[in-house]
Amino acid sequence: MAEYLYGRWPVLESLRAGRRDFQQLLLAEGSEEKGIVETLLAVAKERGVNVRRVPRRVIDDLSKNANNQGVALRAGGFPYGDVETILALAKERQESPFLLILDLLQDPQNVGAMLRVADSVGIHGVVLQERRGVNVTPAVVSASSGAVEHLNVSVVTNLVTVMRRLKEDDVWLVGLDIGPDTTTLDKVDLNMPVALVMGSEGEGLRRLVRETCDMRITLPMRGHVLSLNVATAGAIALYAAWQARGWQGWTRP
Amino acid sequence: MAEYLYGRWPVLESLRAGRRDFQQLLLAEGSEEKGIVETLLAVAKERGVNVRRVPRRVIDDLSKNANNQGVALRAGGFPYGDVETILALAKERQESPFLLILDLLQDPQNVGAMLRVADSVGIHGVVLQERRGVNVTPAVVSASSGAVEHLNVSVVTNLVTVMRRLKEDDVWLVGLDIGPDTTTLDKVDLNMPVALVMGSEGEGLRRLVRETCDMRITLPMRGHVLSLNVATAGAIALYAAWQARGWQGWTRP
Repeated sequence: MAEYLYGRWPVLESLRAGRRDFQQLLLAEGSEEKGIVETLLAVAKERGVNVRRVPRRVIDDLSKNANNQGVALRAGGFPYGDVETILALAKERQESPFLLILDLLQDPQNVGAMLRVADSVGIHGVVLQERRGVNVTPAVVSASSGAVEHLNVSVVTNLVTVMRRLKEDDVWLVGLDIGPDTTTLDKVDLNMPVALVMGSEGEGLRRLVRETCDMRITLPMRGHVLSLNVATAGAIALYAAWQARGWQGWTRP
Repeated sequence: MAEYLYGRWPVLESLRAGRRDFQQLLLAEGSEEKGIVETLLAVAKERGVNVRRVPRRVIDDLSKNANNQGVALRAGGFPYGDVETILALAKERQESPFLLILDLLQDPQNVGAMLRVADSVGIHGVVLQERRGVNVTPAVVSASSGAVEHLNVSVVTNLVTVMRRLKEDDVWLVGLDIGPDTTTLDKVDLNMPVALVMGSEGEGLRRLVRETCDMRITLPMRGHVLSLNVATAGAIALYAAWQARGWQGWTRP
């Protein structure tokens, strides 16, 4: 099924990644063809994607009045993979597996923000619990600034089954959680094959998901407000894990 | 000048912090008096704050239709401090100074998110470059989930003057920046008296602010999308700094 991605960076990253079936690039009439728009047009041409100028309100409609910056891309659905693809990428890179698992996060902003950080630390793949409407939607693509277009993402109906599959490959399942029976980040060595598991905004990890984790960690906090936004906490944990892995795969550009 | 804070947590934290002149708590008619609303009413009573039930639309108007959860608090302005108060708090806690400096961030969401993390890592204070309308507004209070109500915040007209004042006390000014002439986080020991300096969303640090920094650092990134949201990058840097400081001041609750 076709959908409309929107926003300059998200659309550019989607075209760069080149993993979808691209049908048409829509550009608001009057957009100046310089800077990133010029780059967009060049990449679209390279990919053989037809460009059409339309009134701005058409793009507003197609993107449900989201912040689209006068750009929309009609494209096929997101190219989901499975957990085997993710493990294969780790093997191909000769790195120990590094995954992110999202259990029923609800806010596309949070999901997108997490995916952007996941790309930044070079995660091999992301596994999402299937949920009506909050998979890799155009809103998630935009919130990730297009980063998700480059990521291996698997959407599954039963997260616990996948978690058990990962255990077979000795991947440690590390839940990010709160509560007294958790281990604090400062006491943990995350330099291992690891999947970071994040729960939903309000409820945290579901019981069975929590019980399937090998370990549950929590971030140190010394403030008056003893909570962080879930995407912020996840970003900190992902970077802490990558740091523990010796910034694997990173070379100063 | 009075203003209206809104949202259950932000209002509760403001009342708990007890640093403003509280005038009236407004509660939407029909709100059930249990859970956090019950707590709110108890704290308001403790603080001697008068409670008034009003139609929901009154609160919607006062909060400019923001997500107010049926709660608003008429209160005096934010109790700003100055950099001496911040340094005094560090001394009082017998800790080496740990500050956050924000140079012209524009989005209240980003500012609020940064302040929430600043509270979480126990920063001694935050210095903001004065800017019409984007100081500690009710939107910033809400975006910080109320955390800023507990923080030392100083708003100054000339950030560079304050930075020089901090140098007199041997505080290292560490700018978070991008570009080839920066030091990467993995090469830096942040276990020192430190002020983390963050630039604006689009432009980064202003020239003079950048030049006044003792060091500029950047986060390792290995993704396809070589940028992070400014508040996300700041959260990661603040936690990395706190980790380098041995999680100073933190004891497992």
